[in-house]
Amino acid sequence: MLKVWIIGVKGSVASTTIVGIKALQQGLFPTTGLLTETALFNGISLPPLTEMEFGGSDLKAGSFFDAAWATLRDGIYPAQLLKDLQPALEGVTVRPCTAVRCGRTVESIAETPQAAMSYRQIAEQTAKHILEFKGSDDCVVVNLASTEPPVTMGPQHATLEQFEKAIDENSPHISSSMLNAYCALKNGIPFVNFTPSVGADIPALEELALKTRTPHCGKDGKTGETLVKTALAPMFLYRNLRILGWYGTNILGNLDGKVLENPDNKATKIQTKDAVLTKAVGYSPVSKVAIDYFPPVGEDKIAWDFIVFEGFGGHRMRMQFTWEGCDSILAAPLVIDLIRLVQFTKHLGLPGLQKQLGLFFKSPMGSDVVNLFEQYEHLRQWVDKVKTGAVAKETARV
Amino acid sequence: MLKVWIIGVKGSVASTTIVGIKALQQGLFPTTGLLTETALFNGISLPPLTEMEFGGSDLKAGSFFDAAWATLRDGIYPAQLLKDLQPALEGVTVRPCTAVRCGRTVESIAETPQAAMSYRQIAEQTAKHILEFKGSDDCVVVNLASTEPPVTMGPQHATLEQFEKAIDENSPHISSSMLNAYCALKNGIPFVNFTPSVGADIPALEELALKTRTPHCGKDGKTGETLVKTALAPMFLYRNLRILGWYGTNILGNLDGKVLENPDNKATKIQTKDAVLTKAVGYSPVSKVAIDYFPPVGEDKIAWDFIVFEGFGGHRMRMQFTWEGCDSILAAPLVIDLIRLVQFTKHLGLPGLQKQLGLFFKSPMGSDVVNLFEQYEHLRQWVDKVKTGAVAKETARV
Amino acid sequence: MLKVWIIGVKGSVASTTIVGIKALQQGLFPTTGLLTETALFNGISLPPLTEMEFGGSDLKAGSFFDAAWATLRDGIYPAQLLKDLQPALEGVTVRPCTAVRCGRTVESIAETPQAAMSYRQIAEQTAKHILEFKGSDDCVVVNLASTEPPVTMGPQHATLEQFEKAIDENSPHISSSMLNAYCALKNGIPFVNFTPSVGADIPALEELALKTRTPHCGKDGKTGETLVKTALAPMFLYRNLRILGWYGTNILGNLDGKVLENPDNKATKIQTKDAVLTKAVGYSPVSKVAIDYFPPVGEDKIAWDFIVFEGFGGHRMRMQFTWEGCDSILAAPLVIDLIRLVQFTKHLGLPGLQKQLGLFFKSPMGSDVVNLFEQYEHLRQWVDKVKTGAVAKETARV
Amino acid sequence: MLKVWIIGVKGSVASTTIVGIKALQQGLFPTTGLLTETALFNGISLPPLTEMEFGGSDLKAGSFFDAAWATLRDGIYPAQLLKDLQPALEGVTVRPCTAVRCGRTVESIAETPQAAMSYRQIAEQTAKHILEFKGSDDCVVVNLASTEPPVTMGPQHATLEQFEKAIDENSPHISSSMLNAYCALKNGIPFVNFTPSVGADIPALEELALKTRTPHCGKDGKTGETLVKTALAPMFLYRNLRILGWYGTNILGNLDGKVLENPDNKATKIQTKDAVLTKAVGYSPVSKVAIDYFPPVGEDKIAWDFIVFEGFGGHRMRMQFTWEGCDSILAAPLVIDLIRLVQFTKHLGLPGLQKQLGLFFKSPMGSDVVNLFEQYEHLRQWVDKVKTGAVAKETARV
Repeated sequence: MLKVWIIGVKGSVASTTIVGIKALQQGLFPTTGLLTETALFNGISLPPLTEMEFGGSDLKAGSFFDAAWATLRDGIYPAQLLKDLQPALEGVTVRPCTAVRCGRTVESIAETPQAAMSYRQIAEQTAKHILEFKGSDDCVVVNLASTEPPVTMGPQHATLEQFEKAIDENSPHISSSMLNAYCALKNGIPFVNFTPSVGADIPALEELALKTRTPHCGKDGKTGETLVKTALAPMFLYRNLRILGWYGTNILGNLDGKVLENPDNKATKIQTKDAVLTKAVGYSPVSKVAIDYFPPVGEDKIAWDFIVFEGFGGHRMRMQFTWEGCDSILAAPLVIDLIRLVQFTKHLGLPGLQKQLGLFFKSPMGSDVVNLFEQYEHLRQWVDKVKTGAVAKETARV
Repeated sequence: MLKVWIIGVKGSVASTTIVGIKALQQGLFPTTGLLTETALFNGISLPPLTEMEFGGSDLKAGSFFDAAWATLRDGIYPAQLLKDLQPALEGVTVRPCTAVRCGRTVESIAETPQAAMSYRQIAEQTAKHILEFKGSDDCVVVNLASTEPPVTMGPQHATLEQFEKAIDENSPHISSSMLNAYCALKNGIPFVNFTPSVGADIPALEELALKTRTPHCGKDGKTGETLVKTALAPMFLYRNLRILGWYGTNILGNLDGKVLENPDNKATKIQTKDAVLTKAVGYSPVSKVAIDYFPPVGEDKIAWDFIVFEGFGGHRMRMQFTWEGCDSILAAPLVIDLIRLVQFTKHLGLPGLQKQLGLFFKSPMGSDVVNLFEQYEHLRQWVDKVKTGAVAKETARV
Repeated sequence: MLKVWIIGVKGSVASTTIVGIKALQQGLFPTTGLLTETALFNGISLPPLTEMEFGGSDLKAGSFFDAAWATLRDGIYPAQLLKDLQPALEGVTVRPCTAVRCGRTVESIAETPQAAMSYRQIAEQTAKHILEFKGSDDCVVVNLASTEPPVTMGPQHATLEQFEKAIDENSPHISSSMLNAYCALKNGIPFVNFTPSVGADIPALEELALKTRTPHCGKDGKTGETLVKTALAPMFLYRNLRILGWYGTNILGNLDGKVLENPDNKATKIQTKDAVLTKAVGYSPVSKVAIDYFPPVGEDKIAWDFIVFEGFGGHRMRMQFTWEGCDSILAAPLVIDLIRLVQFTKHLGLPGLQKQLGLFFKSPMGSDVVNLFEQYEHLRQWVDKVKTGAVAKETARV
Repeated sequence: MLKVWIIGVKGSVASTTIVGIKALQQGLFPTTGLLTETALFNGISLPPLTEMEFGGSDLKAGSFFDAAWATLRDGIYPAQLLKDLQPALEGVTVRPCTAVRCGRTVESIAETPQAAMSYRQIAEQTAKHILEFKGSDDCVVVNLASTEPPVTMGPQHATLEQFEKAIDENSPHISSSMLNAYCALKNGIPFVNFTPSVGADIPALEELALKTRTPHCGKDGKTGETLVKTALAPMFLYRNLRILGWYGTNILGNLDGKVLENPDNKATKIQTKDAVLTKAVGYSPVSKVAIDYFPPVGEDKIAWDFIVFEGFGGHRMRMQFTWEGCDSILAAPLVIDLIRLVQFTKHLGLPGLQKQLGLFFKSPMGSDVVNLFEQYEHLRQWVDKVKTGAVAKETARV
């Protein structure tokens, strides 16, 4: 059995993921959206979808089923599906969590008073919750909590020693996502950071991951506008068409959107979205990315992008696209793929940052490759090496 | 000196190409749009842009400069640029040509009466025009004529012998683009088919190309909607999102659009555009491609594409894009790239169909790879092999 | 009680209308979409929504509920709503009908063999069905059948006498929609033609309507692209911006779309859509309207319109819009409004064509006013006259 | 001769207007874009286009021609046109002006040091410049300066006496646009406020306008997104479709855009754009309007609007549009129309706010009517009254 612990377990992406897995387990869903169910992974023994159990922490009070019912009904899944799966969903373990430096909007969501605990106490409590849930099974921790405000990088993040000292000092340079990553990696549990928050993206935690021989990956799942951007931008490159400017606006109507209305949280998000274009084309066109909370679109995330480019003889041309996607529906299968793949790398004995999983992320840690095709190619080549046993040999050599 | 002979030399793409090369030669243009001027080709000795001369045939009477002035002024290039380049453009050789099986709209464009010549006489006259122009220089023939109506494939196209017999019999299975390809390849002159017409895309002419050790490539330059389609469709594949339908409509206002209003000519075009999606994703979504003549957009080709796709749990989502491109401006640099590359393959001693150039075409001959990224990868790997001398060795072995 | 007889009672618009009225009657729906429920009609005694019963004819066999279930479930209305209303819907009377000159696609829909009846017999049977259904109540006939192929106007349509003679001769100039209008008007039953088919739009039937003092109105409900067009085109007029071209493409996925795939039926539809622009602006820009059947959009009708216009100094600019509407949902409230209003005009004693209802139609009969604002203004002024009694006095004078 | 004094005479809209009038005077332009040249005004003696002279003030140094050349060349008008009109344009009088409370971006534009004058001195200097320019001719003052930051309304704006006292006290409640309006109205010169700045939109200045019997109008020319919005929003009303949300984003690349990047200036603009929707439909959908500076679009203003609306049965639907307009080209003819019309009202003896000109403005002063059709109707009815002499009689009665 693979136990999956989700930070933000009652959020939209988390509940879409959990309900989706349950539906897959009962044969109610096709495998659409899951890359791990395509021919690419034929012959690879990934953790089976049928052998997964879920738990996690959330700021909001109440049972998982009630949260899923309130969030998903009709907008994401038919009410009937939720009713049919209710018995299976009642089993999802939920524990309260404590938000650290998450911004005022997130804090206002917390329905239970935030206990006045030290960071060390929070870390210990978090670890205790996860280990109790894990028992003797395999376990993966996934961060699906709301985006945190930006954190200034400093010496606190440079080494494990300094990082642990900063925890003990309740340093303002520590955020919840770092604490969660720390708890997972310290206990040898693989960690997936699906959000733009820092998570394990600091040298101190890579040091920890290597020390405990635990794999991790991130960050910021690539689901909508950025997905399209990293497929389209290379097209201009392959035709030597010069992108002069790329303007993108995103409107979304769910809780994620409400949190992103807070300028601090929005800053973190826009940062990871905005850097992508330069990485994709190797120069810096004028690039603007806007995000706005717009309740009438509900669970959908609508993106409109307008691109001005220069062709032969300096001729200016334009293209625009509108993406009408359902964010949680797009994210859930990526989360599932990542759970399976990060656990698989644990099984292979691969420690630390898993760069071959960059395909799934807006800001692939440790890599400047954002071109969707190149990312796919990297993963494909890695899978080929796994099939031929080359990866195992490399691991043995480490 | 490289002599470039263009079929349809007064058309919009041809005149944009020729004027563009002249502007490049005089340092008036940046190299935007030319893949052959990017780092990819560093260290490869392609034919220099400064050493090119142009000539060609056209149904329409009058000088090249007058045609370019009428077609390009203001819509494509500033009038002043054309005036500045007039002396250089007056030197473009133009010879009349004879249309065979091109559809009524094309025939109505012919301002000079079409002489009642046999196909053999047409072929001989065409070859004579090209060889006179070529003299003792290198030469490339490029087909930029209007799209022909579909031709039914038959035994006439199977072998060189049968093909030559069909010419002698004025067979209705022979079209102008085939005759032009025949004249070029027979005389060892590389042939580029930038249009959806058949050109050299028959076994008989591949046989001829191998016999005369002449390279050729095609067909149908990938400039607008299809370019975007082959960058976007793989994105859905890499996320295992199922495309249910892809609807595309194209409106264009120039002569090309007027010719495509004729249902026969349109059929050929739509055929090459429509097959792309299935090749790109490996299954057959509902696919519709419409083309309409709409004079108010002038030289621009506006495409609107609407895509319905299915994600996790069978959830339906949508995306749409509008491409506002100038067709001739997008096509011209591809034509220039292809002229240089096909001549380079001649220089390398590579005969027959040049599959590594699929990146430039909507219907890459001899290949089902339409995924833009894969096509780029193929070309990149080929260029690498050229750089390491691997291609030369392969050729020697042939 | 108002009895409503619908031609094409099992079609998507008809079933959306009937189910919608039932939902309104049971307080399950708000009155959104109904103009007759806005302040404009305060103080006017329209037939109450609660006092309506439905019946009609259809080519397809089976019960009304089964048809509605198949067509509406999930795409248009939640399955649960249909189940809740099932008892109320079981009471809808359905009689078979006979299609005359409706095109091959429509005829192929007919599941029961079309009896070899003369036109006169068809008319008599139709009238019998309607009158049996009507009993001693008020009744309105609404045409919601699929669009017929174009009919050439001739002397057969000029006078009632000639028209009746043509019926007796089974003239090919007679179509089903005319026969239905004839049966209604002859029996003093108001007739609403919501389709682009001819219906009562011939002098012969206006003569009949005046003779029997029966009101009628039409044609072709203005629900989507044309609705937007007639709101936007006047904007250009009020700024003296010259529209150079208006290109519109419509994709739809339901049975209506399938019927319109037949070039004959499509021709009738495009004709009424296309004429609108010239009427709206008083000159003739380049205008193209395309309709394509595209099953993946289901019950939605997606329209993309691209407009090129000229401003000050001849500067060209562009605007485009995408309309993502659900056709039946947009049509149903108009049908309900028209039923109430045409019955109300009957009650007022107003015979013949009701021009004040032009607001609801793409091709308002007897009027060239298509400007949405002007149409609204006409209706508003008429309602004012009704309120002050001016209409009654005019009627008295007739 | 009509003398036109423009505040911000070197800006994009002002120079497009002046060059345009010159081109019209020399027969180089059609009258497209001018409502005052349509049949609506047949028989009305508006000031002739041929009898206009231009002058104005600007923060930027240098001649009018140089500014127009730098701003308009190629993007807005062909270089050749500017050269041809150079002799006529050299005659445009330019005087420096002093910015008061215009925000930092605007102040940074000022190339000459801003003299340390009191508000009273500024007003006197402004009046002197205008009166010198006016001489014994008719004159109109038009505000085309950059948008000012919001001003809090207070007692300073309530009466003329308090306003003049505030000037003398250099009150921070006084802005440049108010000072300019004050100078014009005090001297009996009609004033047009084409910007969102306050201008004459305070009781104190209406008092002054009535006292000197001077007409004025404003504010904020309705040229792009809002123009479309006030044509489309009523459409939903006439179908009783409920708008749930209207999201609009505007990107623009010229100086106007740069000034609007300053949050203060943007606030004023968004305020006038945002209020429109509620006024148009009578309730308050979720409404967001974003404006971003995006240099690659140059003089164009691209707007993308996304509308979510509810139809019958609560069904949600969507529409979106993209407007690709050239702001100055759209604004210039409105400015010309307003110059002619405000002078015409002066000629008719109509003092104070001219509400019948609301059609031209985003925030029509003294009116909540923003529905484009109703505004047109008001103007049409007023013109009819002028034609029949009814307006003259009303004036006589005042």
